[in-house]
Amino acid sequence: MAIQQKLSLMIPGPTPVPEKVLQALSKHPIGHRSKDFQDLVEVTTKNLKWLHQTKNDVITITGSGTAAMEAGIISTLSKGDKVVCGENGKFGERWVKIAREYGLEVITIKAEWGSPLNPKNFKKILEEDKQKQIKAVILTHSETSTGVINDLKTISSHIQEHSKALSIVDCVTSLGACNVPVDDWGLDIVASGSQKGYMIPPGLSFVSVSEKAWEAAKKSCLPKFYLNLKSYKKSLASNSNPYTPAVNLVFALDESLKMMKEEGLENIFARHNRHKLAVSSAIKALNLKLFADEEHLSPSITAIETGEIDAEEFRKTIKNKFDILLAGGQDHLKGKIFRVGHLGYINDRDIITVITAISNALLEQNKISTQEVGEALFAASKHLNIN
Amino acid sequence: MAIQQKLSLMIPGPTPVPEKVLQALSKHPIGHRSKDFQDLVEVTTKNLKWLHQTKNDVITITGSGTAAMEAGIISTLSKGDKVVCGENGKFGERWVKIAREYGLEVITIKAEWGSPLNPKNFKKILEEDKQKQIKAVILTHSETSTGVINDLKTISSHIQEHSKALSIVDCVTSLGACNVPVDDWGLDIVASGSQKGYMIPPGLSFVSVSEKAWEAAKKSCLPKFYLNLKSYKKSLASNSNPYTPAVNLVFALDESLKMMKEEGLENIFARHNRHKLAVSSAIKALNLKLFADEEHLSPSITAIETGEIDAEEFRKTIKNKFDILLAGGQDHLKGKIFRVGHLGYINDRDIITVITAISNALLEQNKISTQEVGEALFAASKHLNIN
Repeated sequence: MAIQQKLSLMIPGPTPVPEKVLQALSKHPIGHRSKDFQDLVEVTTKNLKWLHQTKNDVITITGSGTAAMEAGIISTLSKGDKVVCGENGKFGERWVKIAREYGLEVITIKAEWGSPLNPKNFKKILEEDKQKQIKAVILTHSETSTGVINDLKTISSHIQEHSKALSIVDCVTSLGACNVPVDDWGLDIVASGSQKGYMIPPGLSFVSVSEKAWEAAKKSCLPKFYLNLKSYKKSLASNSNPYTPAVNLVFALDESLKMMKEEGLENIFARHNRHKLAVSSAIKALNLKLFADEEHLSPSITAIETGEIDAEEFRKTIKNKFDILLAGGQDHLKGKIFRVGHLGYINDRDIITVITAISNALLEQNKISTQEVGEALFAASKHLNIN
Repeated sequence: MAIQQKLSLMIPGPTPVPEKVLQALSKHPIGHRSKDFQDLVEVTTKNLKWLHQTKNDVITITGSGTAAMEAGIISTLSKGDKVVCGENGKFGERWVKIAREYGLEVITIKAEWGSPLNPKNFKKILEEDKQKQIKAVILTHSETSTGVINDLKTISSHIQEHSKALSIVDCVTSLGACNVPVDDWGLDIVASGSQKGYMIPPGLSFVSVSEKAWEAAKKSCLPKFYLNLKSYKKSLASNSNPYTPAVNLVFALDESLKMMKEEGLENIFARHNRHKLAVSSAIKALNLKLFADEEHLSPSITAIETGEIDAEEFRKTIKNKFDILLAGGQDHLKGKIFRVGHLGYINDRDIITVITAISNALLEQNKISTQEVGEALFAASKHLNIN
């Protein structure tokens, strides 16, 4: 196992972790029922609200982003409830599966993988629901499997017009990467995960919950225990947890939220946007094709079609020669695309480096000329602060 | 927040973490879909089987011990199933709550808090179930809230005689502290947690699952997603995980399991037994009362009645003066007992130190004489290797 090697993570999570955060992680644990830990929960909760731009409760769960989304769904809905699910990638598909597993009546709004969900489709279904039978709209903001960002702001405005339905949103690879103003957009349930924009290792996930969602939770009758958000709310009143939390990951969270506050939301979003533009413009200069609709590129991840080149072989080359880990395609996209994560603790140097690595691998395979390599780097640098 | 202070954890979890394990925790994360991580899952799974003394699958979940128990229950049972729950403490009560939440028909076998469950009560109910309607027996091995260990070996033998019912056992504070030979005792589902005998911080939990339990899982129709053990089994076939696991805690697990193998199961069990005997004999010499039945003391935790002394004040004194964190009583026992955790990374010195601290606090309050302090230390040392 070469787990000690100098590997650069450019996958959509786990993302690179700052030294300071790793050091926080390796502190001796403290009792999770102690005053010291309550103080820590108080601070991290306050800073989580800052990150979410919300006055809503933000709950920390020990588990993955999937656990957080499941918690949001099962804590607010009941068997037979009608829900609308957006589905334009692997994660959209997963929320449909969860909804069906719990006996919800699911209406799907689909788009091709690589294309965004059309907000008008949501508007239409919600407007037609005169009886107000739709209890929730479930969707993914940044679809990690394809690198597409859905127009959550507009879709959320349609949900608000409906007034009865809750929004339950997977913001796992958007929160902490681009603007997700929970209160401004009126988002009811927002789920995210630690190993993404948060810059800490996997193991924690987060759920912001609006007053409207808590009202719905009172009537929810799906069976649940560990993932029952109501238990977390009750404990949060005393800055505590219903079940033993991953204490050391909370140390790390505290440190990373402080770093994020130091950088500032606007700067964080601008950095991710810069990196998105740098990668996508370089990719085009290299004659590769962006998998996602160019008008709807995720700030966190860029999916790239490799045409006749086997994407898995290409990833291996980049890993072996440059110690950069890229993500592959999932399901039917395996071997057809690779994905560059530019999420979390990533700087301009990382972006220039990954573009150089991709260029070099293409050059070695005689797919491009040195001229194009230069153009790709120039195109990228125009978006970066190195310019 | 004094989270950097030199605090010694003698609570039933989080337990102290060895330096080597803390260092493993602070490594840069790796991709959870990488070959390196698969290699790590292969090794830790093999060593988890060693620890469980089993050929069964042992699954690692990112979540608390409660998540692991819930996973065991909801992955193998269906709505309306009849189950028998042992209930003689806070955790026993919790498994009853989970079973009822999911619509199981629960028959409880109770004992007073501080007393063990009577195996004969299980034998009787199981023998009377001629129609074999009981689908599972759910119980806690070491009841953390009271310091009682239940006679799992005998109870399990009665479940085996019944032949149809599964055993679903909370071994959260017994596994890695005393003998839990999963195959020898024929245990179907065994749940445990990282922040206990495993000597790593909280965030991971473990479930060992027998073939008989996997058979039952095929018929289980309770709704579940994140805690569906079948998804973990499928992924485990390729040393993978269905959802993003807490990668850094797995680094820590790898290290701690290696340490446990180096010490050896017999030595680990003997150490915990030694510490149990040292603490309980000192407590008696100090004229305090053991809360749990003396014949059924948990190897991991000793609960102590404080009589007219406020147990919470007593804990505070020990914390402030000696930097030793003890656990309080839960629910109706708050203020009436305190609990000394001697679980995981604890050595003879820690035991002598905590006895000294308790003695000193009692002496200062004029509750005992110097003669009794000496007797307590002498009584304890007879059981320790320092003798």
